[in-house]
Amino acid sequence: PPIAHLLGFPLTEVEEGRALFTGTPDFRLYNPIGTVHGGYIATLLDSCMSCAVHTTAPAGFGYTTVEIKVNFVRAVTDKTGLVRAEGKVINSGKRIGTSEGRLTDAQGRLLAHGTATCLIFPL
Amino acid sequence: PPIAHLLGFPLTEVEEGRALFTGTPDFRLYNPIGTVHGGYIATLLDSCMSCAVHTTAPAGFGYTTVEIKVNFVRAVTDKTGLVRAEGKVINSGKRIGTSEGRLTDAQGRLLAHGTATCLIFPL
Amino acid sequence: PPIAHLLGFPLTEVEEGRALFTGTPDFRLYNPIGTVHGGYIATLLDSCMSCAVHTTAPAGFGYTTVEIKVNFVRAVTDKTGLVRAEGKVINSGKRIGTSEGRLTDAQGRLLAHGTATCLIFPL
Amino acid sequence: PPIAHLLGFPLTEVEEGRALFTGTPDFRLYNPIGTVHGGYIATLLDSCMSCAVHTTAPAGFGYTTVEIKVNFVRAVTDKTGLVRAEGKVINSGKRIGTSEGRLTDAQGRLLAHGTATCLIFPL
Repeated sequence: PPIAHLLGFPLTEVEEGRALFTGTPDFRLYNPIGTVHGGYIATLLDSCMSCAVHTTAPAGFGYTTVEIKVNFVRAVTDKTGLVRAEGKVINSGKRIGTSEGRLTDAQGRLLAHGTATCLIFPL
Repeated sequence: PPIAHLLGFPLTEVEEGRALFTGTPDFRLYNPIGTVHGGYIATLLDSCMSCAVHTTAPAGFGYTTVEIKVNFVRAVTDKTGLVRAEGKVINSGKRIGTSEGRLTDAQGRLLAHGTATCLIFPL
Repeated sequence: PPIAHLLGFPLTEVEEGRALFTGTPDFRLYNPIGTVHGGYIATLLDSCMSCAVHTTAPAGFGYTTVEIKVNFVRAVTDKTGLVRAEGKVINSGKRIGTSEGRLTDAQGRLLAHGTATCLIFPL
Repeated sequence: PPIAHLLGFPLTEVEEGRALFTGTPDFRLYNPIGTVHGGYIATLLDSCMSCAVHTTAPAGFGYTTVEIKVNFVRAVTDKTGLVRAEGKVINSGKRIGTSEGRLTDAQGRLLAHGTATCLIFPL
């Protein structure tokens, strides 16, 4: 999708109930206080958490993300290097699916984490 | 800041306890399900909510955004036109500041809303 | 309902898009760190926010609260006196309704605030 | 603490980074729509998530819960029986600690889940 191209965070792995996006944040993504903007972090977590729920929606059903919640744990900079945003389904119901996401660096340090709530509906 | 340039959402108005960012989302920001990515929406809301708290931090104090929460209300597309992300402080304490944000279109329709929690600390 | 009786927080006012619960927290509600438990605060905010969405659900529709988010701003104690939990609808859609809540004391000081997301469905 | 006595949910297990509360919800906790009030669920999750962070605060430091977020997954009734609220630390930093909680029934079914953000400060 266009935004993954613009910001450079491809879908790297996907399986039932799990999705992984990766990226290498750079200076283009900085906020005014000198670190990578929380919006970039939220974008990666939204992507992996929503995609994880999507993998569990039955055939003939669509989904839309109702809300996300993101905690920023460590500053991300252009020195951080490759980051991994991994989303995993917590619960997949008939109408609502929820998931959690973790953003980590190459050393496995936690940079941010979040949850998402998606609405699942017949197409 | 670089990301506001990359994604095209300048800070438009700012005063004590309030900040407004505006933007006109386009196809570059699309997600795979055919609408503007929730991450763009989260980026604008994070910006206006964090900036609103920043305006209330005393001199000699810095801030960092601890967490944001965003509800997506209506799909945003390349037909939506100009969007306004307005953040307002809810509470400004000695160590924690909170704020809320609303993303609306030119007709005033609510597209998304959120809250943020910031940590305020002596520099 | 039983819990409002047990914890002592009656529904005080209700109108389209708004609900108000009141209570006077006492020592029975204390947590181990010497203040009123956040769960009491969450209970009042959940009540007023969910009820506010309920007032906007069309006839023949039910609702269920999908998630709540609560920020604790000031400690509540047995000296706080009467508290007011006011919920207001933010958006009432066909399938999802969202609302916000404020818990204040008799002097109007903000004690806590929150948001809720409800699912609206045909009965 | 008084509220755990009032609502009947003792701290059952605690260790570094983890806390477990248990309870058996009954009719006294019902909301007006005929299930156990979300506030009871939020109270148990707040307890286990906050307590989990507390176990990781260094000596001489206190904590306060800044915010909680709770997703309600399955209705809880007076037929549910024993419920377990387990909190685990996600990240324990110098100033902020975060945790997650799961509420499950005796069969291990997920009833609700959440996250918490706590402020850690020198006493």
